[in-house]
Amino acid sequence: MTERSVLDWLADQPGVVGLGDDCYIVPGPMEDQVFTTDMFIEGVHFKTGQAPEWIGHNALARGLSDIAAMGADPRFCLVSAAFPSDDEAWTRRFFQGLLKLARESGCVLTGGDLSHTDRFVADIMVCGVVPRGLALRRDGAKPGHGVYVSDALGTRARDRFCSLVKPRLDLAQSIRGRASACMDLSDGLSIDLHRLCLASGVSATLSAVPVAPGATEEQALHGGEDYELLIVSPVQIPDTIRIGSIVAGTPGVISYRGTVLEPKGYDHFAT
Amino acid sequence: MTERSVLDWLADQPGVVGLGDDCYIVPGPMEDQVFTTDMFIEGVHFKTGQAPEWIGHNALARGLSDIAAMGADPRFCLVSAAFPSDDEAWTRRFFQGLLKLARESGCVLTGGDLSHTDRFVADIMVCGVVPRGLALRRDGAKPGHGVYVSDALGTRARDRFCSLVKPRLDLAQSIRGRASACMDLSDGLSIDLHRLCLASGVSATLSAVPVAPGATEEQALHGGEDYELLIVSPVQIPDTIRIGSIVAGTPGVISYRGTVLEPKGYDHFAT
Repeated sequence: MTERSVLDWLADQPGVVGLGDDCYIVPGPMEDQVFTTDMFIEGVHFKTGQAPEWIGHNALARGLSDIAAMGADPRFCLVSAAFPSDDEAWTRRFFQGLLKLARESGCVLTGGDLSHTDRFVADIMVCGVVPRGLALRRDGAKPGHGVYVSDALGTRARDRFCSLVKPRLDLAQSIRGRASACMDLSDGLSIDLHRLCLASGVSATLSAVPVAPGATEEQALHGGEDYELLIVSPVQIPDTIRIGSIVAGTPGVISYRGTVLEPKGYDHFAT
Repeated sequence: MTERSVLDWLADQPGVVGLGDDCYIVPGPMEDQVFTTDMFIEGVHFKTGQAPEWIGHNALARGLSDIAAMGADPRFCLVSAAFPSDDEAWTRRFFQGLLKLARESGCVLTGGDLSHTDRFVADIMVCGVVPRGLALRRDGAKPGHGVYVSDALGTRARDRFCSLVKPRLDLAQSIRGRASACMDLSDGLSIDLHRLCLASGVSATLSAVPVAPGATEEQALHGGEDYELLIVSPVQIPDTIRIGSIVAGTPGVISYRGTVLEPKGYDHFAT
């Protein structure tokens, strides 16, 4: 099975609505709410032995990145976490790392669930808000729009177990009302842009991809774990880098310097 | 460490608000929203080999029980789940069990996160709504109020790995606006009533506890996994069973037939 096959099947089931974006949108009278959940599992998303503050920070950062991708501002989070030991100092350090980022992001911790297990797992739900009707989805890209990324790519593909994820909440305000589609780059540019183009029913041509210092072009194209934003917009977005254009064509097909770019990023089940 | 020690420490940290009830309450102009998350972990909350439909049903049912305990009606859920195999038929059966209960409960599935791991884990976030100001908390019990349970207790302590959890959403409408405090019985009557009395700053005296057919009094008092509602109310609540009264006294102390009832239910870390 692949994530895609499960999600495609799920989307057709009665009682399932709103799949396909980084967050689920709940319309409101003044502002819309957006909701996301992200799991962070020892041995899957990070190696055993990472510092607990790092784990707490990155567990929350991945959810905040989804909030930023919707053009939203975070409000509150719920944290479910299961711990393999009863080391209360470790548990406190996990929450200290998480709460430091939460406070810096204007997000309060409001509840959750605690349990035990044999390998650490956390699941973070984050709720954000965005002015009514301005939440960014994946299905709004149109031929002629530019494709942008929020920074050079590949750093965390090279070094995913050391650096702290920095969710691009600083860009949320400047992209909403301007961009036509957005998502965060979690699984790799090639597969994430492929998904965005499928959702919008368009193709894309890429001219150049900014490679982070020390990373390879392969890591920038396919490496994943960047947590930068992939933005499609009819107008230039400040502090972003243009990498190509949306074009009419077979949905999901990406060309890069004249050849087809295979979507090779991360699929949780196809490993 | 104990759940209580972690939660007490967390409640004192800057950036943490609203802990202590079954759900977090977000006030709104017309109605309030309530949010809960609940983990369901193979080998912790259920045995390996359970039918996937049972796992999906019970994973969601535990969250719906928290919604009912607030006097709320469920609206939508997000499902994070990590699977130990790539058996797509098993995955679909898990979601079929979950979605059947969701549809019966008026709750739509709107997103989540999929991953893999070595033992199944799900975390379910449920959002419910309740008319403005009517969400039930744990801290409203006052001396003189009656203590009620929604049914006889102990069934699932005897047989927790077979029966389907039936969240008492049928009672939500009749308790809101009437009850002064409520929570669901997940860890055992003795520890759950102890927690409610601590939150309200009161004691309680129990005269009789209804024991489910085939269960022992010990299972009814301490067994946990009932997912019935524990209700405190100044007026009789239809279709519930009165088991005692709230009294003034040392917060959290429960007397049962003249002796102090030790809170002996389940703590996730004190095992």
